[in-house]
Amino acid sequence: MSFSLTDPAVASLLGLSVREAKRGVRGANPLVGAVIADASGQVVATGHHRGAGTPHAEADALSNLAAAQELAARRQNEQTPLDPALANPGPLDPATLTMLVTLEPCNHTGRTGPCSHAIVESGIGRVVYAVPDATDRASGGAAHLVVNGVEVIAGESISEQWVAESGALNARWFRAQREARPFTSLHLAQTLDANIAAVDGTSQWITGDASRQHSHGIRARVDAIIVGTGTILADNPQLTARDAGGELAPRQPLRVAMGHRDVPDTARIRGTGSFEQFHTHDPREVLSELKARGVDHAMIEGGSSIATAFLAADLVDEIWLYQAPKFLGRGRSALDDLGITSLSQALELELDDVDGPAVRQLGNDVLLHLTPRHEDK
Amino acid sequence: MSFSLTDPAVASLLGLSVREAKRGVRGANPLVGAVIADASGQVVATGHHRGAGTPHAEADALSNLAAAQELAARRQNEQTPLDPALANPGPLDPATLTMLVTLEPCNHTGRTGPCSHAIVESGIGRVVYAVPDATDRASGGAAHLVVNGVEVIAGESISEQWVAESGALNARWFRAQREARPFTSLHLAQTLDANIAAVDGTSQWITGDASRQHSHGIRARVDAIIVGTGTILADNPQLTARDAGGELAPRQPLRVAMGHRDVPDTARIRGTGSFEQFHTHDPREVLSELKARGVDHAMIEGGSSIATAFLAADLVDEIWLYQAPKFLGRGRSALDDLGITSLSQALELELDDVDGPAVRQLGNDVLLHLTPRHEDK
Repeated sequence: MSFSLTDPAVASLLGLSVREAKRGVRGANPLVGAVIADASGQVVATGHHRGAGTPHAEADALSNLAAAQELAARRQNEQTPLDPALANPGPLDPATLTMLVTLEPCNHTGRTGPCSHAIVESGIGRVVYAVPDATDRASGGAAHLVVNGVEVIAGESISEQWVAESGALNARWFRAQREARPFTSLHLAQTLDANIAAVDGTSQWITGDASRQHSHGIRARVDAIIVGTGTILADNPQLTARDAGGELAPRQPLRVAMGHRDVPDTARIRGTGSFEQFHTHDPREVLSELKARGVDHAMIEGGSSIATAFLAADLVDEIWLYQAPKFLGRGRSALDDLGITSLSQALELELDDVDGPAVRQLGNDVLLHLTPRHEDK
Repeated sequence: MSFSLTDPAVASLLGLSVREAKRGVRGANPLVGAVIADASGQVVATGHHRGAGTPHAEADALSNLAAAQELAARRQNEQTPLDPALANPGPLDPATLTMLVTLEPCNHTGRTGPCSHAIVESGIGRVVYAVPDATDRASGGAAHLVVNGVEVIAGESISEQWVAESGALNARWFRAQREARPFTSLHLAQTLDANIAAVDGTSQWITGDASRQHSHGIRARVDAIIVGTGTILADNPQLTARDAGGELAPRQPLRVAMGHRDVPDTARIRGTGSFEQFHTHDPREVLSELKARGVDHAMIEGGSSIATAFLAADLVDEIWLYQAPKFLGRGRSALDDLGITSLSQALELELDDVDGPAVRQLGNDVLLHLTPRHEDK
């Protein structure tokens, strides 16, 4: 017999699952958080997904549960408390456990195995999920659980707020899936008056070491980096992902040039790793070609015309905005014409507290993490 | 007999005095922090200056000391602890106390009395100060203390770091004094791409309620607010200081128009309080005229040409930069030409952790508090 899902105390378990999800990173995969509670509703394990290639939230929670069980078993063998009430209860019966997860467990074998199968194997008796997985690739997890005797409950019968919050976490991600394109992260590094270069074109370096190190971390996470041919000709960037010591990260993203101008054979972007040029200014076309090549997460590095094109087309899913504490007055603006003439048409953003605080000091710089406000069109 | 000032533990008292100073506000008066320690070096009271018209740091610390003494006396009368070692030691002998203060105590009667006299009256035996007060108006405090039998020690013999940190706190303030002009606070409210209005001129409101409320708090603190005639004609601002409920603050700043264009009789800036127009584009001239009228702290509200003129002339002492999470693409830029053509000439700023965190979320906005990097020219 497990706790009742209509108990008001369940709200704190649901909130915890959302907070767990926010510990993950935006990118190729959705954000998911999972909480495992015992028959009395006490939390015994939590888990979250840390990004492509790492265990899903459910698998993370199951592995934390296993570790907790092992510890409990060891303590039981070692200790004989004076007060029997303090005696360690020993391993939990998995059938009495409930897993609460923000997204329907997947039924897909990718870089990791299907969560629905792992849950069945663990013997967990009950699964409550917030948002159904409607992607072609991974849906069907709930059905697999039911067929294998797990009690499955859809979140809408428990808490509409939970379903809404869990859905909002991945609104932009689901849109990218529907649009059959990679999830996109826009990188902007600018002065406080929003210049990305001085009048004479100098731009190295506007931001400090800590900011550049952080953006190398994002580069190491993505499958592709997109820059305009203008930026390649002006700055000749390497676009490699490096660690703090300057060493190349083990996985290097595909380097993508966008535009019609020729990229010289000597351009540094042609160096380490793969390089590809798309002779177009249409961001949809670039993303669609990248998706066909297996790119699930692309980073848009600049310059201003590329950043503006993706923003104007509503193809930016998150923004990492690095601000250096300086003014240039006149210079090269971070953005060009977005087709906005009046304040009421402004492109509205939301501070995004996923993957760290939305607003943080990074050395002498200020880093903002933002998401374009999602209007489901 | 008091503790030795060469004891390494004194460093923590010095650090505390600087942290105390940072709890104050930048403006008409310098930032000052004070710590009172007993014969063993234990902190018995701290104080800081909260801005023009409020007690100076030394007076604040003395009043906190008096409150602590009163409490100690009351406890002594009420309690008889079982362990005599816990017995309250009762009132301290002021002659055994040391005051450590980041600036030489003033010798000036302004809105508050001279600190040097208050210290003599308190009977405190020893005063250590970091930075000498070189202003015509308030200097001579140390001499008054010595003449009246207080042991006075200049900070340079104790800790160069303390003197440097205490001086850096007020570097821009001392410069304003030397230049015989008011201390200035620049207000900027912009989008994340540094626009203060859309292409069609709409600008109300870029920032949210919490940001506007914060800037009303700054307005209530200053003696004058400066705007360009262009801003008056475009936006017809009231420039009053109001509280969260919309009520006028008890003290309203002088409203100053800067520029050649006529300000209509019906302009709202001519409403509540005093109004003055200076027919010039020279920021030095405006500040000098304001100083002659008794203005010690002026706020520069905009628009972009006024902000740019003060920044280019190095006449901005602190910046409150309110950023709204939105993009406009094209629009009216926050700043115009600063005469900077290359990144190495950028106007460098420092995050300023005085008067609250340098970087903070304010509703949906982000507020940065900044100081132009001071190069003593």
